[in-house]
Amino acid sequence: MKIITISREFGSGGRELGKKIAEILGYDYYDRQIISTIAERHDVDENYVEYALNNHTWQTIPLTFHHSFVSPAIFSMPHVKFLNEQKHVIEEIAKAGKNCVIVGRNADVLLEEYNPFNIFVCADMSAKIKRCQERAEEGENLNEKQIKKNILRIDKNRARTRFFLADGEWGHRKSYHLIVNTTDWDIDKLAQAVAKMVELHGE
Amino acid sequence: MKIITISREFGSGGRELGKKIAEILGYDYYDRQIISTIAERHDVDENYVEYALNNHTWQTIPLTFHHSFVSPAIFSMPHVKFLNEQKHVIEEIAKAGKNCVIVGRNADVLLEEYNPFNIFVCADMSAKIKRCQERAEEGENLNEKQIKKNILRIDKNRARTRFFLADGEWGHRKSYHLIVNTTDWDIDKLAQAVAKMVELHGE
Repeated sequence: MKIITISREFGSGGRELGKKIAEILGYDYYDRQIISTIAERHDVDENYVEYALNNHTWQTIPLTFHHSFVSPAIFSMPHVKFLNEQKHVIEEIAKAGKNCVIVGRNADVLLEEYNPFNIFVCADMSAKIKRCQERAEEGENLNEKQIKKNILRIDKNRARTRFFLADGEWGHRKSYHLIVNTTDWDIDKLAQAVAKMVELHGE
Repeated sequence: MKIITISREFGSGGRELGKKIAEILGYDYYDRQIISTIAERHDVDENYVEYALNNHTWQTIPLTFHHSFVSPAIFSMPHVKFLNEQKHVIEEIAKAGKNCVIVGRNADVLLEEYNPFNIFVCADMSAKIKRCQERAEEGENLNEKQIKKNILRIDKNRARTRFFLADGEWGHRKSYHLIVNTTDWDIDKLAQAVAKMVELHGE
């Protein structure tokens, strides 16, 4: 079994890349379904799960959570409950034993014992802003400055979540097998290249 | 014409990787020859050039060198002279217009206008120490602690040289198209994968 994890900067095209790699290799693909499963199990709205996971105040959590004592009271907080559930769901995916691509959710950290192939996807800020503009939903009309602010905020949260779960730094070369910058790539071609790399890695 | 530049942590196997990529793609390969050329032109020993380039005291140079005024006196210092000569040699290689792989020497920064494909090669510390031990010259008998100290010293110098030449950070994802960690790779297979990636990038 081979597991590919994709961590990414917001707007870098990491999700699209992950999806295409899964298609090329015939792997299962997990992304949003993880949130849906958590929502279902707790009988709450998907958006609430997403919001709670991404927008909690980190001040309420000791940042050494993963190797120090913390008060049990913390586990009743929604985001901690959901983080735990997310961990379970991701572990269930791994235990199913099928080749898969998992985008986001710190799967690289959570599934460390399965030796996943860990990819980080980044892009230049101007490319990320452009991608966000092209993919904006109807009625959404943010200017460049607002989009950039969003990107930085979301990435800061992603970096913090990782810091909370593991020692390795988010987006740092030491934490991944591969870091790719999508800026001047055709995503289809890049997906082919990365899929080939994953195949060769296992040989 | 396509130029591939390889920057790397000491002991990560970046040079070996670069050489193999050049072989697979049939590209010219430049590494140590750059130093030899500088030595020849200044009629000095290769090792002196290497030493001067790697062991100067950065305190003597304003770190904003690349966009601020500095005293002309600085250009008479051997390391600055050699850095300038190195720049010329690398630019000559690019101007020759042939596909090539250039390892080290900040070719990624110096040849920015040629849009090279920039790769950074890293590895876990334990893998780098092992590689250094395997490649130690006869009579060289450093212990792990000494090897680690060497690795950190050399990498610190590389990071500083880059800082001196350009804004982008050494080893940071923003500065490269691709970062690969060689730790659990067979270098031959990784070279195949990266060569394939370079081919797809240009299509």
